[in-house]
Amino acid sequence: MLEARLGQTLLLKKIVEALKEIISQGTLDCSDSGLQLQSMDNSHVSLVALSLQSDCFEKFRCDRNVSLGLDLKSLAKVLKCANSDDTVTLSASDKPDKLLLSFEAGEKERTADYELKLLNLDEDHLGIPDTEYCCTIHMPSAEFARICRDMSMFSESVTIACSKQGIKFSANGDLGSANIKLSEGSKGDVTIEVDDPLTQTFAGRYLNTFTKATPLTERVKICLSAEVPLLVEYAIEDYGYIRYYLAPKVDDADV
Amino acid sequence: MLEARLGQTLLLKKIVEALKEIISQGTLDCSDSGLQLQSMDNSHVSLVALSLQSDCFEKFRCDRNVSLGLDLKSLAKVLKCANSDDTVTLSASDKPDKLLLSFEAGEKERTADYELKLLNLDEDHLGIPDTEYCCTIHMPSAEFARICRDMSMFSESVTIACSKQGIKFSANGDLGSANIKLSEGSKGDVTIEVDDPLTQTFAGRYLNTFTKATPLTERVKICLSAEVPLLVEYAIEDYGYIRYYLAPKVDDADV
Amino acid sequence: MLEARLGQTLLLKKIVEALKEIISQGTLDCSDSGLQLQSMDNSHVSLVALSLQSDCFEKFRCDRNVSLGLDLKSLAKVLKCANSDDTVTLSASDKPDKLLLSFEAGEKERTADYELKLLNLDEDHLGIPDTEYCCTIHMPSAEFARICRDMSMFSESVTIACSKQGIKFSANGDLGSANIKLSEGSKGDVTIEVDDPLTQTFAGRYLNTFTKATPLTERVKICLSAEVPLLVEYAIEDYGYIRYYLAPKVDDADV
Repeated sequence: MLEARLGQTLLLKKIVEALKEIISQGTLDCSDSGLQLQSMDNSHVSLVALSLQSDCFEKFRCDRNVSLGLDLKSLAKVLKCANSDDTVTLSASDKPDKLLLSFEAGEKERTADYELKLLNLDEDHLGIPDTEYCCTIHMPSAEFARICRDMSMFSESVTIACSKQGIKFSANGDLGSANIKLSEGSKGDVTIEVDDPLTQTFAGRYLNTFTKATPLTERVKICLSAEVPLLVEYAIEDYGYIRYYLAPKVDDADV
Repeated sequence: MLEARLGQTLLLKKIVEALKEIISQGTLDCSDSGLQLQSMDNSHVSLVALSLQSDCFEKFRCDRNVSLGLDLKSLAKVLKCANSDDTVTLSASDKPDKLLLSFEAGEKERTADYELKLLNLDEDHLGIPDTEYCCTIHMPSAEFARICRDMSMFSESVTIACSKQGIKFSANGDLGSANIKLSEGSKGDVTIEVDDPLTQTFAGRYLNTFTKATPLTERVKICLSAEVPLLVEYAIEDYGYIRYYLAPKVDDADV
Repeated sequence: MLEARLGQTLLLKKIVEALKEIISQGTLDCSDSGLQLQSMDNSHVSLVALSLQSDCFEKFRCDRNVSLGLDLKSLAKVLKCANSDDTVTLSASDKPDKLLLSFEAGEKERTADYELKLLNLDEDHLGIPDTEYCCTIHMPSAEFARICRDMSMFSESVTIACSKQGIKFSANGDLGSANIKLSEGSKGDVTIEVDDPLTQTFAGRYLNTFTKATPLTERVKICLSAEVPLLVEYAIEDYGYIRYYLAPKVDDADV
């Protein structure tokens, strides 16, 4: 039996909002260490991985490993019915065909229970190798979201160039071109660790989708290395993360 | 001649917003005791009744009974042109083909007059019998609106079950199921009077339409009895009400 | 070479928002006295003229006259990428095929440069004769915007009647009729100078488009005279203006 109580529905809302833009269905793997979800996006280009440790929950019990096939849009609908500061308890049996969500406000005059039907999903889990990245950037997540949005007005492709001097985002299209440069400032908003300078180009629409996780945290970590996918990581307090992976474009112009 | 001056356009805005979602046209019956409107909704399933006593108005004069056939959407458009705190005067002749609406702000530097064409509507007035209901619930109108909205995400039908222990709203559909339970709390938000426990099912879309009257008042009264339509009543200060009536579904499963 | 630095992007945003609703493309004529743009609207009915003096800018340099063919929607997109309080520098070469916009926030950790492709536009510049108007109205720009919006719900045509007693806006349509009267008040919100009373009818949709300039200034000047186009003027601080011109309708009913 799974029973997991979260003090605030808001955190779950933010997680589901971040996921539902990139995957429509996904399998939540529950074990006594916590919850995990890994999935390719709908067009099988990027990968998203959620990890949430059991100590993120006020109460957590998972007697045996169980996999919950979720329709993310339906889950988001149920969460719309809850107040952000409601307590939410997720529960499921050992062989579940539904997930039960129980919301409680401060006093007990109102209880709201929702049963969500589960899906049978076949999913291959990809092993994600640990990678040493040659460029690591920490920056405000809102700034990253804004840059991705601005770039997407100019082109489908966004080029990220990292060097010790700073990080440059560029896009080039019919309208004209855009260049935004960030450097390590005295305020410490942006930190850049670069072993080798690197320039890579990405499909902007995926970067934009990743930024749906912006409400989760004020800082985002971006890691790049030659010939491996970009990693964009949003921490979930001290208890986990959502990580997005996206391979760079192989651009003819670069060959 | 009819002449009726209301201190605040806001009240009229709220009334028309509440009506226009459920009926597109209606006949406002004016007499020296006040204004009345009764109409089936556009699909002839539910019934709405407005009553507004003459002492709701700063000034009220109605020399002889007159019926004004109104297009509610047009009236709403005219009201959009007024500030909420404008004074509004409704006037019409004894054999009117138009309704005059005059708006005044605090000072007289600006006057705005609108003439709205009237419609010839044939309407049968239904006598609504006084009913003794076996379940009467008072609850916050915003809470009722939210429950109706949440239920409608799950199913077209909403089941209301009343007992001395409380009131339960449920909906069941492809997505899963929803159950919200309210009990009489110490805070007195919800009061429930039940002679006989009762379970009835209603078309959720009409309930949702009724809740367009929510801005009128903080409390809503819901009355149910076996084999009579549900009554949902929103008071208009001390001067009247909007009442909605909806027959329960005859569900095969209940037979 | 053109180089013009504006202390606040907000002013440029407001100007472009005001123009882009009425013209999709326009030629910005730059000289050492400042910037000018004149264009018929897309349907060749009304005329818009922008004038911005060089002393509106923190820094202004224009070595030789240059004309910049702008796509207004594209320019608006670029401006969406800037914060309202960013400094913006416009620059172009003497024979430009692009306009460079550089945005700077308070500190220099972030720079954003955009290059916008220029268009080759053939435009005839109309000489706009200086006109003595027989009616001149000053009124709050937000009030004028609201009246134009309200009138457009009733009819495509708005009639403006000016006399020493005041100014009356009217519209007549299927819905009914609307009349809004303003008089010179004690508060001085509205001032009316009338040599000869005048009644003219205009296409309301153009008036509505003119009011997109409302955010530029709290006051609008409206000038009318027999047989000449209406002038609606929005001042840009002390440094210029946007002027709109619209010929009155030749209404059969008036003949």
